[in-house]
Amino acid sequence: MTTYFLGIDGGGTKCKAVLIDEHNHIIATGLSGSANPYQGLEQAKKSIVTAAEQALIQANLPNIALADITAGIGLAGVNVPSLYQQIMAWQHPFKNMVLATDVFTACLAAHQGEDGAVIIIGTGTCGISHVNNQQAMLGGHGFPFGDVGGGAWFGSEAVKCVLLSFDGLNTPTELTPAICAYLNVDNAMDLVAVIAGKPAAFFAELAGFVFSCAECKDKTATNIIEQGVQYIENMAELLLKNNPPRLALLGGLANRIQPWLSPSLQAKLSPPLMSPEMGCVLLVKNK
Amino acid sequence: MTTYFLGIDGGGTKCKAVLIDEHNHIIATGLSGSANPYQGLEQAKKSIVTAAEQALIQANLPNIALADITAGIGLAGVNVPSLYQQIMAWQHPFKNMVLATDVFTACLAAHQGEDGAVIIIGTGTCGISHVNNQQAMLGGHGFPFGDVGGGAWFGSEAVKCVLLSFDGLNTPTELTPAICAYLNVDNAMDLVAVIAGKPAAFFAELAGFVFSCAECKDKTATNIIEQGVQYIENMAELLLKNNPPRLALLGGLANRIQPWLSPSLQAKLSPPLMSPEMGCVLLVKNK
Repeated sequence: MTTYFLGIDGGGTKCKAVLIDEHNHIIATGLSGSANPYQGLEQAKKSIVTAAEQALIQANLPNIALADITAGIGLAGVNVPSLYQQIMAWQHPFKNMVLATDVFTACLAAHQGEDGAVIIIGTGTCGISHVNNQQAMLGGHGFPFGDVGGGAWFGSEAVKCVLLSFDGLNTPTELTPAICAYLNVDNAMDLVAVIAGKPAAFFAELAGFVFSCAECKDKTATNIIEQGVQYIENMAELLLKNNPPRLALLGGLANRIQPWLSPSLQAKLSPPLMSPEMGCVLLVKNK
Repeated sequence: MTTYFLGIDGGGTKCKAVLIDEHNHIIATGLSGSANPYQGLEQAKKSIVTAAEQALIQANLPNIALADITAGIGLAGVNVPSLYQQIMAWQHPFKNMVLATDVFTACLAAHQGEDGAVIIIGTGTCGISHVNNQQAMLGGHGFPFGDVGGGAWFGSEAVKCVLLSFDGLNTPTELTPAICAYLNVDNAMDLVAVIAGKPAAFFAELAGFVFSCAECKDKTATNIIEQGVQYIENMAELLLKNNPPRLALLGGLANRIQPWLSPSLQAKLSPPLMSPEMGCVLLVKNK
């Protein structure tokens, strides 16, 4: 009789489940909505179950229910002990549940369960090293006071420069009209109104303009990129002190930022080996 | 028969009214709560009327009602045309109402109704010059993307440095234990939880630590102060291009930041001559 495993990766916008057999073959996948426990614990639980059920339906296995399967779950924020305990106290529908932060499961996936380190550069930034069963996490403190070098940080730095140029406090470059055209504003007051109360994802959408302008040698954009890169370099330096055998960049901006890193750091990078939800399965199997 | 005027200065935490006679003698004052129209238009109107009524009750004048008095009102945000029009459309209880941004009325007060410029350094920062009936405003774009050099900015920069030092990404100085002791945190996760969703006023409370540490030559704190000062210097340079006869620093951090300014800028500063609510009266009288 085959043993199945579920890997469930819950993020702020979507939750992905993968059902595999004992040979790591993917039998089926499932997808649902937001599963960030910070944004709502009940919603997160619901998304986890929905994604898992979807995978099970797709697999169409006779006589197999969630209660027969051990699930490995990667979730943001569960490095906070109180949140970890809240979710572990859940009367979940699985046979067993192994829980870890999504950063750790992403690291397991990137290195196929072996030791290594990752820097995730998406809307935010964070890093982790996993060496000899020791984990060290860096950053991930959230927008707008942490997560330097992430999409939201790049976008908000661009907005700050545009505000300064409206006041005549810096010299506008190509970045200013690019941001203004996208946001459909031509003065500081309108820009302030447009950005008021917006979440990190809104600012992350502007990051592409910073990279495009910097790639065309725009001075302001290049300056922003260099500040973000310096933070990533510092993070990498600290993670490498733990001697991880491999270091991978992950996240939506990883490919965009890589050419800006120092040649010595670029030379140390390895490609990620598996998708993040597979890291959740490895969490169960490594246990 | 004496003619009376009301000056009403509405801010984010309180609304101050001053009742004066035609010789600019203060007859009575009134005080009420928040009158920032951005935080609630109805609350702002209510606070304005309450402060005005309080002044009238204190004055104890027979046969004088709000309907007999012209009010000059200084309010945040009314440089935004839509907000100005919304408040001007109000069926207010006064004989007449003259409305202007609180930054402009503060400038009028600082120079006793004559031409001049001011830089306001409180929770946020902004500047205005008022020369030959021409006004130029700078900054005031709000926390956290504008208002460099204001209390909230100083406090949040300090928090960012503390987060970096928890990660080992910078060397902690005296500023780190000072902030941590005040906020009662000793790790990044707790600090992130404490600052989540906090308003500008929360961060502005931390600004004092940045100044205290910088005054004791703390490197991190000094670096933050110098960045804020550079912004204030740039703002002053731009305002001075309009040739205002006087330039004054206003706001809760004005005295604290002044010694850090360049000697040449310090030499150009003049003391403010009247309190901000008197500027609201001048608004009526200058009209």
